[in-house]
Amino acid sequence: MRAAVLQAAGDALAERGFAHLDLADIARRAEVGKTTVYRRWGTVTSLVADLLVDMAEQSLSRTETGSLLGDLKANARLVQRTLADPRQGALFKAMIAAATCEAKTAEALHHFYDIRVEEWAHCVQQAIDRGEVPEDTDTHEVIRAVSAPLYYRLLTSGDPLDEDAADRAAEAAAAAARAGAYLRSK
Amino acid sequence: MRAAVLQAAGDALAERGFAHLDLADIARRAEVGKTTVYRRWGTVTSLVADLLVDMAEQSLSRTETGSLLGDLKANARLVQRTLADPRQGALFKAMIAAATCEAKTAEALHHFYDIRVEEWAHCVQQAIDRGEVPEDTDTHEVIRAVSAPLYYRLLTSGDPLDEDAADRAAEAAAAAARAGAYLRSK
Repeated sequence: MRAAVLQAAGDALAERGFAHLDLADIARRAEVGKTTVYRRWGTVTSLVADLLVDMAEQSLSRTETGSLLGDLKANARLVQRTLADPRQGALFKAMIAAATCEAKTAEALHHFYDIRVEEWAHCVQQAIDRGEVPEDTDTHEVIRAVSAPLYYRLLTSGDPLDEDAADRAAEAAAAAARAGAYLRSK
Repeated sequence: MRAAVLQAAGDALAERGFAHLDLADIARRAEVGKTTVYRRWGTVTSLVADLLVDMAEQSLSRTETGSLLGDLKANARLVQRTLADPRQGALFKAMIAAATCEAKTAEALHHFYDIRVEEWAHCVQQAIDRGEVPEDTDTHEVIRAVSAPLYYRLLTSGDPLDEDAADRAAEAAAAAARAGAYLRSK
């Protein structure tokens, strides 16, 4: 039941955005009783937060290529494919828009990114262990630096989210990490 | 009259977000006749687009420090101060949220960033002329790279938008530019 409702909520968000989200509509899409949906989630905000918990739990396997640049490129391509996908891109836009006006959604969104970043930060730790980047590098900040230009394109500049953009984001983050731009002590 | 209405629209956006924006409320705040506001702008979307045109026209003078890192730090501090300011930060969040569901607002937002990026891209051209970064560097992309981690903090990760974040964004962009991560031919 939860899976069907979350799927319907994701579809509705991607299609119509956060402002038009409606629990009754989601219940109808999921073919679940309206009362059940109201009883379990209560508000649209709670349902979106639960959708983010569910997305965070869906483990996306991390690629290990043996080099920092290779790993960051794999990460960048994953983010780029997600944001360039019509349903997923629209869903992320809608959730980020919702987070700008709902503290509970913002908290769930931050938690979602914390988990994603934590998972990929290991590849920066491996690069430290291999001596590719300075020991005191903030591993999480390197991973965030890979995503940032791609989200910037999605939300502000409107520039295309293609594979070149992904590769460039990875190359820039790797070069800056090697140069010591992400040292914790700074 | 336009200045008063745009000021009121900015205040309303910053306080209540895009979803609750209302032309009658803005007219009241601006102490301008409702009919005048409806006749001139017609819709909330048109008014927000006009606000972005006005913001793009307000020239923010670019700092010249004589080095790429110095110039990028000045740019990063400017973006950071804007996004960390309660009114301005809320205003940008509201406009970006509006752009996720309104094509006309998205277009106005892209235009706003194009103008801002164009203005600051000159400092990267000067760095090319000084031989600090490779000749084929995409000057606009370097400026976008400075802003991206700051917008990422504002919209997704929720990490603090402090001066350290600004300096780090500038240092990372400068290091990546020097390393050739923003070459046009790539």
